[in-house]
Amino acid sequence: MSDYRAPVKDMRFAMDELAGFRELSRIPGFEEATPDLADAILDEAAKFAGEVLAPLNRIGDTEGCKLGPNGVTTPAGWKEAYAAFSEAGWNGITSPAEFGGQGLPDSLGVAVKEMVCSANLSFSLGPLLTTGAVEALLTCASDELKSVYLEKMITGEWTGTMNLTEPQAGSDLALIRSRAEPQADGSYRVFGQKIFITYGDHDMTDNIVHLVLARLPDAPPGVKGISMFLVPKFLVNADGSLGARNDAHCVSIEHKLGIHASPTCVMAYGDNGGAVGYLLGEPNRGLEYMFIMMNEARLGVGLQGIALGERAYQQALGYARERKQGRDAITGEALVSIDKHPDIRRMLMLMKCRVEACRAMAYYTSGLLDRAHAAGHTEEGKRQLWLAEFMIPIVKGGGTEMGVDVTSLGIQIHGGMGFIEETGAAQHWRDSRITTIYEGTTGIQANDLLFRKLMRDQGATAKLVFGEVYATVKALAASGNPELQAIGQRLGTALKAWTEATEWLAANARSGLSGVLTAAVPYLHLAVTVCGGWLMGKAALAAAGYLDKGEGDQAFYRTKLVTARFYADQLLPQAAAFAETVMAGDCGVPEGVDLFAAD
Amino acid sequence: MSDYRAPVKDMRFAMDELAGFRELSRIPGFEEATPDLADAILDEAAKFAGEVLAPLNRIGDTEGCKLGPNGVTTPAGWKEAYAAFSEAGWNGITSPAEFGGQGLPDSLGVAVKEMVCSANLSFSLGPLLTTGAVEALLTCASDELKSVYLEKMITGEWTGTMNLTEPQAGSDLALIRSRAEPQADGSYRVFGQKIFITYGDHDMTDNIVHLVLARLPDAPPGVKGISMFLVPKFLVNADGSLGARNDAHCVSIEHKLGIHASPTCVMAYGDNGGAVGYLLGEPNRGLEYMFIMMNEARLGVGLQGIALGERAYQQALGYARERKQGRDAITGEALVSIDKHPDIRRMLMLMKCRVEACRAMAYYTSGLLDRAHAAGHTEEGKRQLWLAEFMIPIVKGGGTEMGVDVTSLGIQIHGGMGFIEETGAAQHWRDSRITTIYEGTTGIQANDLLFRKLMRDQGATAKLVFGEVYATVKALAASGNPELQAIGQRLGTALKAWTEATEWLAANARSGLSGVLTAAVPYLHLAVTVCGGWLMGKAALAAAGYLDKGEGDQAFYRTKLVTARFYADQLLPQAAAFAETVMAGDCGVPEGVDLFAAD
Repeated sequence: MSDYRAPVKDMRFAMDELAGFRELSRIPGFEEATPDLADAILDEAAKFAGEVLAPLNRIGDTEGCKLGPNGVTTPAGWKEAYAAFSEAGWNGITSPAEFGGQGLPDSLGVAVKEMVCSANLSFSLGPLLTTGAVEALLTCASDELKSVYLEKMITGEWTGTMNLTEPQAGSDLALIRSRAEPQADGSYRVFGQKIFITYGDHDMTDNIVHLVLARLPDAPPGVKGISMFLVPKFLVNADGSLGARNDAHCVSIEHKLGIHASPTCVMAYGDNGGAVGYLLGEPNRGLEYMFIMMNEARLGVGLQGIALGERAYQQALGYARERKQGRDAITGEALVSIDKHPDIRRMLMLMKCRVEACRAMAYYTSGLLDRAHAAGHTEEGKRQLWLAEFMIPIVKGGGTEMGVDVTSLGIQIHGGMGFIEETGAAQHWRDSRITTIYEGTTGIQANDLLFRKLMRDQGATAKLVFGEVYATVKALAASGNPELQAIGQRLGTALKAWTEATEWLAANARSGLSGVLTAAVPYLHLAVTVCGGWLMGKAALAAAGYLDKGEGDQAFYRTKLVTARFYADQLLPQAAAFAETVMAGDCGVPEGVDLFAAD
Repeated sequence: MSDYRAPVKDMRFAMDELAGFRELSRIPGFEEATPDLADAILDEAAKFAGEVLAPLNRIGDTEGCKLGPNGVTTPAGWKEAYAAFSEAGWNGITSPAEFGGQGLPDSLGVAVKEMVCSANLSFSLGPLLTTGAVEALLTCASDELKSVYLEKMITGEWTGTMNLTEPQAGSDLALIRSRAEPQADGSYRVFGQKIFITYGDHDMTDNIVHLVLARLPDAPPGVKGISMFLVPKFLVNADGSLGARNDAHCVSIEHKLGIHASPTCVMAYGDNGGAVGYLLGEPNRGLEYMFIMMNEARLGVGLQGIALGERAYQQALGYARERKQGRDAITGEALVSIDKHPDIRRMLMLMKCRVEACRAMAYYTSGLLDRAHAAGHTEEGKRQLWLAEFMIPIVKGGGTEMGVDVTSLGIQIHGGMGFIEETGAAQHWRDSRITTIYEGTTGIQANDLLFRKLMRDQGATAKLVFGEVYATVKALAASGNPELQAIGQRLGTALKAWTEATEWLAANARSGLSGVLTAAVPYLHLAVTVCGGWLMGKAALAAAGYLDKGEGDQAFYRTKLVTARFYADQLLPQAAAFAETVMAGDCGVPEGVDLFAAD
């Protein structure tokens, strides 16, 4: 068991210096998002996360959810915590005010969401899925469906789920078999089984709103024949009260490696005559609607990796400060706390700087989304949106892979105690392991970056990013500060590796597809490494500015310079290695040879 | 649940081509270790591991061990499997024949041990600890103690344990407080509590032989005042029959992240008047005796990482061949098994080549130990021993870190199913997580490599290794085979990085100790990366030879060339990055600054 104290200072720094939150309140539509409001919200959220949600994290892990005859029961304290969460308005923090949300910008919401994930990942998944479903309804629901469902989901009175996966259809949604039959009254009857449905059932709210992908009778095969349906657990009467129980049931829950308190349900629709459902938007456009939500959901999962990394870092730091072992290698002092040992310090630094770099990427991206949102359907709006969409697989892939690595370092710092479940360090690692899989595996993020985000505009967006990185390299070089210049030199080398690898991919995309495909994940790692170094470089420039002026928390800014330098020395050299791997092509795997034949 | 089929072909290849097993039977003392005998033993061991031990692996995970009033109960089937294991003589395979062992060389035993670990890591730990205790008795026990205990431990009739850790003394044995009081009859009474005692109690044998580190009344403080005692669970009568129950009890067992079926005990000695113990060797030399065993134990744990990587690879490959998802990106064929997808193939190749590279290192090292053993106290014997000792932290650190990475890839290949415990993929990852911690953390291995193995002879042994790697670089370059030359080029670059980093460390060891200390783990990764590439290069040379001659299993040798090339392209570029990180020095961490102050 460990406490969680939200890193408000670093969050605020990332918001102000990297996401451009401070300037946001000057943009029409975000006038209310003032620095003062942000202070108040971050403080309240930090309190709620630390005091209400964090203490339930280990209880959730040990108790888990149970499936009984009346459905799924959440662990002790869950229901009350959820009620308090909704009551305080946290559920709808970035949802539109017209439907009961707070209407706050993503670049503020991102910090609140990180806190909730750090405090209790299993808990956070309910609201995450609900927010996703809300986005879908905002995108494509009729006014009538919106009026019945939206406000209750935004306030958190009801939760939402996303039903994509079927046993035969994991990442490959073309294989979906669930079907929907039109009824005379304009509704549908939905039939099929869905698996891996997060919070598919629970006891925290009176109703659950399932969004289900299924096929209409005349639908074309493949992904172009999938429609989206709203299937409530309880039907809703005309006056808004709950009606009959719908034919949508959780038939089993999974026994998982982690996030034990998040019920992962097998859902059966229509086993008793058909589940009443309502078509969302137009027929056969379900996948398209799903992809609209995907950006936010992937950013959210990237944030989960960051959040678990932060929690693991705090716990490891706390342990290292308390645990006394061995002699100080430099001073010779006997029986020092292990945070004095160089390799423990190295691991703590690695945890800290990798979390901060990924946080910088996630918050920066949320700022892009705010600007895209504010600018709407203009050239500038599109530019910001495409930049955000370019960053999203980097944040998702990078944040989650980092989360697995960093929570593992957290165990390592605990030594043998890290392997004992009571310590709680292992839970973060177990919980993290799903994040590189759900909402699209790391391999899928890499393909998205390479084949969609990079190639859809022939590298135009990528060149914008390269230009931004190069501007940071130049600013660091021009700073006159040797620490910043050292960072700039490493960043410049890493950027060169990234651009070279990108050119290689562009040149080889047609001639050697197999090599380009195997290069995708190393290319993603390369992009993550450079983007992390770039934003740490920007952070260092900002920090150095405050140090020069003697403004603000000087100790915090000094530390930021050191973490940026550490990232540059320890992480940026890997960029060249990833680039070499990308450009190695098809990894020496001759086509058509079954390499695994002997195994 | 997954099957395990021992990779006998690759094991035999590593034994013959890298460990020099084929030549071993010409060395006096190893005449019996003929290729035919090896065939027979590997086949039998493979059968036993696959048919008896592997099916118990998941049962062990789900049932775990229980502590009741009569001590620890192992899971269903454990006791019978252990009896069969001992009966077949597997326990004493490398122990001296004069005490009932098989007296076989390490370079054959290593393959058998790998099989047992792959099949069932929790099971393997009992015999591993027993073998360690046997080594200790062989080193320092009186003839009397040897005659009473050794044969029964070698045959497996009794098991052994190692009792080092105490709550306040983890990696820092100077803090040990357990004490031993001399008695008039020459025995001792031992008092104290020990934690993390693997197989400290169980129901598989009639007796358990605990080796306990404790202090004599007049012992000097610190590590020079620690003695080693033999404390049996049941005293042994003069006729060899079991006597009174000794005052040595398991008081609790840990709830762990993995290896659930290996009981991790808190042991209480002397709570009821004192546990009868016998001094092993001379007073105050306990730590020295412990270090003698350490080589073998660390090699054994490195092997565990390899074994789990192999098991995870087999399971992931099996799943990828069965699971159908998506379209072939190159041929366009619909609904192909996922082993056709480039990124899945990349992950499978990464698993395979990393396991094979680490296997090569471990088996090579066991060959060095055999030669050291055969040559005894000669110059040649010392040279071989020091080479082996140089390799051991590389095998331990490299094999275990690889095991964690590769079992994680195993989960990733399973997608969402990997997160479901029933699949069994997650167990390998959980089990692997202890291996980078026990028998010395990765940080401790790195310090051992740098400050002991590298510096104790001013780099002389390292230069021998560099020379061997260089010889392989030259042979690859001279081969006339473009595949081999490509490998040679990458290996040459990587070797240059390793030598440069080594020279930097030698130059800075005195002036900037802090930087050298933080460089230790990156330096270990560098050594692992290059040694893996070196032995894969040697393997490729051998394979190419057989291909040229048209001898042996041509498909196997062709695959070996590809895995070697894959390793060179995907792993060797990282050597330069690790070297840069090593030479970055103290990672920009100014001394005396509390970087974590804000956290």
